Amino acid sequence: MKAGFCSLLGDIPYMVDIDSAVEAARRRGARRIVLQLPEGMLQYGLYIAKCFEEMLGGAAQVYLHADPTFGACDLHYGELDTTVRPDLIVHVGHSPYPAELAHEGLEPRGRVVYVRALSKSQLPLDALREAAGLLASRYGVRRVGIATTAQHTHLAEKAAEVLRGEGLEVAVPPGLRPYFGAAQVLGCDYRLARGVRADGFVYVGGGVFHPLGLYLATLKPVVQVDPYRGVSEDLTREGEKLYRSRLYRVSQSIGARRWGIIVGLKSGQYRPWLVEKLARAIESAGGEYLLVASEVTTLSQLVAIDNPWFEAFTVTSCPRLPTDDFWSYEKPVLTPGEAMMALEGRLEPYRFPW
Amino acid sequence: MKAGFCSLLGDIPYMVDIDSAVEAARRRGARRIVLQLPEGMLQYGLYIAKCFEEMLGGAAQVYLHADPTFGACDLHYGELDTTVRPDLIVHVGHSPYPAELAHEGLEPRGRVVYVRALSKSQLPLDALREAAGLLASRYGVRRVGIATTAQHTHLAEKAAEVLRGEGLEVAVPPGLRPYFGAAQVLGCDYRLARGVRADGFVYVGGGVFHPLGLYLATLKPVVQVDPYRGVSEDLTREGEKLYRSRLYRVSQSIGARRWGIIVGLKSGQYRPWLVEKLARAIESAGGEYLLVASEVTTLSQLVAIDNPWFEAFTVTSCPRLPTDDFWSYEKPVLTPGEAMMALEGRLEPYRFPW
Repeated sequence: MKAGFCSLLGDIPYMVDIDSAVEAARRRGARRIVLQLPEGMLQYGLYIAKCFEEMLGGAAQVYLHADPTFGACDLHYGELDTTVRPDLIVHVGHSPYPAELAHEGLEPRGRVVYVRALSKSQLPLDALREAAGLLASRYGVRRVGIATTAQHTHLAEKAAEVLRGEGLEVAVPPGLRPYFGAAQVLGCDYRLARGVRADGFVYVGGGVFHPLGLYLATLKPVVQVDPYRGVSEDLTREGEKLYRSRLYRVSQSIGARRWGIIVGLKSGQYRPWLVEKLARAIESAGGEYLLVASEVTTLSQLVAIDNPWFEAFTVTSCPRLPTDDFWSYEKPVLTPGEAMMALEGRLEPYRFPW
Repeated sequence: MKAGFCSLLGDIPYMVDIDSAVEAARRRGARRIVLQLPEGMLQYGLYIAKCFEEMLGGAAQVYLHADPTFGACDLHYGELDTTVRPDLIVHVGHSPYPAELAHEGLEPRGRVVYVRALSKSQLPLDALREAAGLLASRYGVRRVGIATTAQHTHLAEKAAEVLRGEGLEVAVPPGLRPYFGAAQVLGCDYRLARGVRADGFVYVGGGVFHPLGLYLATLKPVVQVDPYRGVSEDLTREGEKLYRSRLYRVSQSIGARRWGIIVGLKSGQYRPWLVEKLARAIESAGGEYLLVASEVTTLSQLVAIDNPWFEAFTVTSCPRLPTDDFWSYEKPVLTPGEAMMALEGRLEPYRFPW
């Protein structure tokens, strides 16, 4: 079964830039390589890992990393360096994590190579035209911004062209090397989208995670164009609903005195300045807090540490945990921006993600 | 609400040796302390953390660690050292991890203090006498060994006395400093129990995790005496059933050629010599393998990386994952000892845990 794994990669639904990673591995003389993939690509991990080994002609051993890596904030290099000590981490599918969102020790310098994985899904043209019509007729949008994720950035210019053909003024946020491709957003970083003049957005990509975050970050109409399902969908109402539920949580937390501050232990989710800022704000308001550190924060963990003492929690690791995973928890769990709103006793302006 | 958290600790069902940890923190001048607790004690984390802060008089800040720590194999110091950089990790409820089960970099020297947490549960004397009768009448046991976990080691001698009163010869495995208290077993280490002359065992403690492992490690009758429920329970049949299911999995794997070798990324679960040994054995048998690295290994992760290429998996991190979490998986998932049995093509002797 020395089957030529590289040849199988042609069949997977992503264009993975293996060559650049092999080049980096050769340049470094790497003998121990850890291969990290987004959860949706782990099923191709065997092929990619074995193709690497083939291309490196047995000079290196590749470890397929099976822990979920939710983004470039999540390299696990602390645990890796106390165990297998890789010469190189090949991180596929996410762009490098913006340094300004993380602490100084974000990554082991020079030992990570980021490999693009672009989706082979095509832009659904009819759905895109439908999205243009929807934004104009329902919300009177004239200037539309494009937003997408790393695996679809190559579709942004084409999408803009089609929308312009529908009579809209279109802004494609320029990329920002090395962090962002054109129009790219992260679940925790919508700065590129917020930086363009637009009355509404077309989001190109699957799922509701990124477009709902886009709504919270901009409070402007968002229509999704999904290359996987070939349809468009107006997510504005769902976004408004989420926004109202967030304001309700903030209003519930006004006057809370005993806080849990969750501190992130993933390399890109440790934000000491936010922890410090919240701690000072809680003390200034006459309150108290407990620091709770965790790498992965789940509902069952929150239940495990909860206690009648706590009146509210704030999560300084990933701003999507409060909005997506803990929205239904019996006590308010807030993003740092929301916690600052509560501590200042006001419901606007809404601050998201940080 | 500066309530005097230390006074609340009297009400929790464990005797936690806080003083020794405070002493260690003072000696080191620790300013940043991470407090780790077994999952079942996280509910008392707030009280313990705040009591620490009280006793240290504001000289230190305590982070309650909310990630599960399944044992002293699971200190998370790699991620901790790339983020909060604690001066001291206070690890409660587990004894230090035996150095010979782990690689050389097991722990950050001098920066961990292990704190005992003994259960306040009493030994149920009737249940203990019942256990003695059961072992003698059902299995003809005359020499019984005692096994227990860290939180009940102080009950071992008393249990032995009662069993002797019932006419049995009783062996209490001596402790082994600093790793083990008297009669102590870990889910992955039953050497103390195996080291005594006994025809059967009384296991003092709750749950079936440790006593079933004890059966697999010794293949001798095991009766549990549960201080929480106050009852005794013969687990021998359940142990036999588990043992037969393991042999079935081994027999299914004889002749498997394409293996996944799971490499543990937790500090105490990285065992390079086992990985190496299995890799060589697979190659000698004409097979192939892929190295799969993971910190936490769950069924959903295994499903995510699985592929028709794999015929069997072996887990070199924690030997309880194959027996407890993956026993029903559609493909065999074996402990290293079981995988060696399969590669050598024989069903005995059974090797567990390693």
